[in-house]
Amino acid sequence: ITTRVNCQNVKNNVPRVKLSYREMLDSNNLITFNGLVNSSSYSTFVLDEERGRLYVGAKDHIFSFNLANIKDYQKITWPVTNTRRDECKWAGKDILKECANFIKVLKSYNHTHLYACGTGAFHPVCTYIDIGHYPEDNIFKLVDSGFENGRGKSPYDPKLLTASILIDGELYSGTAADFMGRDFAIFRTLGNHHPIRTEQHDSRWLNDPRFIGAYLVPESDNPEDDKVYFFFRENAIDGEHTGKATHARIGQLCKNDFGGHRSLVNKWTTFLKARLICSVPGPNGIDTHFDELQDVYIMNSKDPKNPVVYAVFTTSSNVFKGSAVCLYSLSDVRRVFLGPYAHRDGPNYQWVPYQGRVPYPRPGTCPSKTFGGFDSTKDLPDEVIMFARSHPAMYNSVFPINNRPIIIKTEVDYQFSQIVVDRVEAEDGQYDVMFIGTDIGTVLKVVSVPKETWHDLEEVLLEEMTVFREPAAISSMEISTKQQQLYIGSPMGVSQIPLHRCDVYGKACAECCLA
Amino acid sequence: ITTRVNCQNVKNNVPRVKLSYREMLDSNNLITFNGLVNSSSYSTFVLDEERGRLYVGAKDHIFSFNLANIKDYQKITWPVTNTRRDECKWAGKDILKECANFIKVLKSYNHTHLYACGTGAFHPVCTYIDIGHYPEDNIFKLVDSGFENGRGKSPYDPKLLTASILIDGELYSGTAADFMGRDFAIFRTLGNHHPIRTEQHDSRWLNDPRFIGAYLVPESDNPEDDKVYFFFRENAIDGEHTGKATHARIGQLCKNDFGGHRSLVNKWTTFLKARLICSVPGPNGIDTHFDELQDVYIMNSKDPKNPVVYAVFTTSSNVFKGSAVCLYSLSDVRRVFLGPYAHRDGPNYQWVPYQGRVPYPRPGTCPSKTFGGFDSTKDLPDEVIMFARSHPAMYNSVFPINNRPIIIKTEVDYQFSQIVVDRVEAEDGQYDVMFIGTDIGTVLKVVSVPKETWHDLEEVLLEEMTVFREPAAISSMEISTKQQQLYIGSPMGVSQIPLHRCDVYGKACAECCLA
Repeated sequence: ITTRVNCQNVKNNVPRVKLSYREMLDSNNLITFNGLVNSSSYSTFVLDEERGRLYVGAKDHIFSFNLANIKDYQKITWPVTNTRRDECKWAGKDILKECANFIKVLKSYNHTHLYACGTGAFHPVCTYIDIGHYPEDNIFKLVDSGFENGRGKSPYDPKLLTASILIDGELYSGTAADFMGRDFAIFRTLGNHHPIRTEQHDSRWLNDPRFIGAYLVPESDNPEDDKVYFFFRENAIDGEHTGKATHARIGQLCKNDFGGHRSLVNKWTTFLKARLICSVPGPNGIDTHFDELQDVYIMNSKDPKNPVVYAVFTTSSNVFKGSAVCLYSLSDVRRVFLGPYAHRDGPNYQWVPYQGRVPYPRPGTCPSKTFGGFDSTKDLPDEVIMFARSHPAMYNSVFPINNRPIIIKTEVDYQFSQIVVDRVEAEDGQYDVMFIGTDIGTVLKVVSVPKETWHDLEEVLLEEMTVFREPAAISSMEISTKQQQLYIGSPMGVSQIPLHRCDVYGKACAECCLA
Repeated sequence: ITTRVNCQNVKNNVPRVKLSYREMLDSNNLITFNGLVNSSSYSTFVLDEERGRLYVGAKDHIFSFNLANIKDYQKITWPVTNTRRDECKWAGKDILKECANFIKVLKSYNHTHLYACGTGAFHPVCTYIDIGHYPEDNIFKLVDSGFENGRGKSPYDPKLLTASILIDGELYSGTAADFMGRDFAIFRTLGNHHPIRTEQHDSRWLNDPRFIGAYLVPESDNPEDDKVYFFFRENAIDGEHTGKATHARIGQLCKNDFGGHRSLVNKWTTFLKARLICSVPGPNGIDTHFDELQDVYIMNSKDPKNPVVYAVFTTSSNVFKGSAVCLYSLSDVRRVFLGPYAHRDGPNYQWVPYQGRVPYPRPGTCPSKTFGGFDSTKDLPDEVIMFARSHPAMYNSVFPINNRPIIIKTEVDYQFSQIVVDRVEAEDGQYDVMFIGTDIGTVLKVVSVPKETWHDLEEVLLEEMTVFREPAAISSMEISTKQQQLYIGSPMGVSQIPLHRCDVYGKACAECCLA
C-alpha cells in the first residue's frame, strides 16, 4: 500500500489515511462475509472471546463466526412457517422486509446455551441454541423443543429498535410488545419470577422510545444494589407549544425490583430516567443540541462502579446533518438520579423541580442492607410507590464530561451510527481509540489526545476505512481485545478488520500519531 | 466582461454569474463611496426619489448622495463635544467605537426637513436637518437651534438595533431608553401628544428585543384603523427548562392609541405580538428553525392593506450556520392577532390559548367607527386595559406562505443580512427579484420562479456580486425604481449597482433566466 501518512495536525474532516474498499482488501486488512442471498440485517452480535466465536443474529439465520477469520462460520436457519408468513402478508406487511424471522435478541444464556428471539413475521418467538460444552464439540443448533412466545422480548416490527441484557437467567428487554408498535416498555421476563414491566399508557414513563442499549453497573460492593441502565431516545414530553423534539435518555432499574404490593404490581418501582445532553455551547446561551442517540459504548475502568459512557448522537434536523460523540461519567448520572424529581401539577403546568417532602426510602433506591432497612420492593410504603409512579423523570439533565462533545462532525455526507472504543496503553499514558461506524459503511478511527491538559482534548481522525462493498449503515460493532480485531455488521454482511495496522504507519509514526 | 452565463438549472449554492469586486468595477457596474477616514457605519438610509437623493446617517456624519452617482454628495458633520466624549470615555466606553455620534434615526419630517437622532456618545440627541424647498436650493445643513433629547428615540449604545418610523410628525421608535441598554421599549415621541411607550419591566411585553423594522399598514379604508407593525427578535419567554431560544416577532400598535385612562396611562393599550415562524418541516414533526430575524422588506401590492412581507432569518446555532427567506401575508398576521391570546396562570404554568371570555372591545382593535363605538383608547373599560396588560402575546404563530422558506442557504461561508425586492413585469407575469445582502459584503440576486404551479416556487440564484473592497456585513439596502439602481450600506462605505445588467445576460438570456 502506498498511502502516505501525514503526521501533522490535519483539518477536522480530513483523515490522515483514507482507504477504499479495494485498498482494504488488497492490503489484507479486511475480511468480509458478504451475506447470504436469502438473509440480511446482520445486526445482533454476541462476542464469545473464550470460544473464539462471534454469534450474529440476522434475517432467518443465526451465525457462528470464527473470530480469527469470519470466512469460517457455521449457521442455523430459523425461518418462519408458511402459515405465519401468509398471515403476516394478509396483515398488509411486506413479504421480504417484514414477514420473516429477524433475530433481535441473542444472548449468552449459560455455559452451553444461547438465548435467541426473532420477530417471527410479526409474531415474536424465542428459543435456546445449543453451543455444546466445549468449542471442540462443534455444536451449533436450535433446541427444537424450546420455542417460547417472544412477546415483551423481541418487537413485532423488525424496523423497531430493541435493547436487551440477560442476567442470571433473566432477560431485561426494552421493546414494543404489540403488533401496532405502540406499547413500548422495559420488561423483565424468563427466570422464576413473575414478568415485570414499566407502567403502561403513561407517557411520563416512556414516550415512544427507541431503545439503544442496556447495561448492568454495580452501585456498591453489595450485589443487592446492582442497577440495570437502559439508554434510549424518545419524544420530549414538554413543549407542545415549543414544538416537537427528541430527547436522549438514560433509565435506571434495580436488579432486585419485584414490583409493588398494592400498586405498581408487576411493574418496576425503581424506574427513573434522566435526559442526556450532548450539545455545543453557543452565543447568548443558545446551545446546539445533538439529541438523536444512536449508540452507546461502556468503557470499564479499574473501578467497575464507575465506567465511562461513550455515546454517539446525530441531529434531529433534516437540514443540518451532523454527528457528535459525548462522554458521560456514571457519577454524574448518579448525582442526577439523587437530585430533584421532575414534577408538574397538571397538564397546563411546566415541569419544575419537586420541592416537597420525598417519601422514604427515596424512590429509585434498591432494597438492600447498604442504604436502608427494607428487603423487597414489595415492602415499600404505599406513598413511596405512589410517588415513584408519578415521578419517573428527574428534573436535572446529565451533561457530558467537559460540558461539550469530544467529537463533532458536520458538513460531511455521512452520519455516525455506531461506536466501540479500544483502550490502548502507550508509553505516555492510556489512550482511548474510537472506532466509529457510519451510515455509509465506513469506519472512522479517531483518537482524542490531550492538547494542553486532560481537560482540553483534541480529536485526531486517523483513518477512514470503507469496510463494505456498497454504502450501508453500520448497525453493530464488537471489539475483540484478544484477537485485536474489530467486527462490523450491516444490512449486507459482516466485516472484520485489525484494530491497529502498524504496517501502514510504521513504528515511528505510531509514536507520532499517539504523541 | 467575459463571464459566460450558464442558463441551465444550477445547484443551489452556485450562482449563474459570480462577479468579484474588480470585475464589478471594470464592467462599470459598481460605483462606490469608500467612506471618510473619521467616519463609519453607513447604515441609516432614507431614499428621496423626488429629489433624487439618498440620505445616509453614519458615525458623526450625515450624507446626501446623488442617486444618479453617489460619488456626488454633500455632507454634514455632527460630532459630539469634547466634554461629552470625555464623559463617555470616563464611563469606560471605547473612544472610537462608542464615544461618537452614531446616527441611528434619519427620517423625512416634512417637505423641507429631515429628523435625525444619534447616540451622542451615550447621550442620545436629535435635531432637524434643513434640505430646502427645492433640490435646486442645494441646502443640506443642521438646524442648530433644534437640538432635543434623544432618549426613547435613539439608543445610547451604537451596537443596539433600533427601528423607527415617522408618521404625521410623530416618531415611533423601538429602542433602548437607558445607558445600560436594558430598558427596551417601543416609544411614540415628537408631535403634540404626551409620549407613550410599552409597559416597563414586563418580560411578557418585550424580552430583550432587537428591533428590525417598523411599517405603517392600513387595516381598512378608514385611517382610524391604521396600524404600525414592528418586527423584532427577542428571547423566548417559555422554556427555562427547555433551554434558551430566540423568537422572531411581529408586534402591532394602533396609530390612534393614546394610552389608558386609569391603568396603562401613557402606555400602549393596543400592543400585541405574535411569533413569526420560518422553519423547514422535518421528519417526525421536528422542524428546523431559522429564528434570528435579520431584515424585513415590505412589498406593496395593488391592495395597500395586504402587502407581502419578505423576511431574512439566520440560525441561532454557532455550529450549523444557515440563512433563509420566508414570505408572510398580512392576512395571516391579522388572523393570528384575531386568534387566541397566550395565557398562563402563573410562572409554573405552561402557555395555553386563553379560553375565557375576552372583554369588549377586543384588545388590539383600534378605536374607530369601523369596528365599534368607542372614540379613544382612554375610553376603554378597565377590564379591557387589564386584559391587554396581561395578554400582550398571541398563542398562535404566523407561518410563512406555503409553510416553508422560499430560500435556504447552508454550508456556505456567509449568512444573509439584508433584503430588498424589485417587482419586475415580464411577458409571462410578475417576478419578484430579490437582492440579498450578506455579512461578507456580497449581494445575491435571486429570483423565485414557479416550477409547476405558483405554490411550488423554485429559487434561481442569478448572480453573486462583491460590492465592497473588503468583506463587511451589509447593513442597509435601498432600491430606486426610478433610477433602476440599488444602494448598499456597510461599516466601510456605500455602494451603488444597477438593478439589471442586460449587457451581461443579453436579451436572449434575460428571457431564459426569467422563463
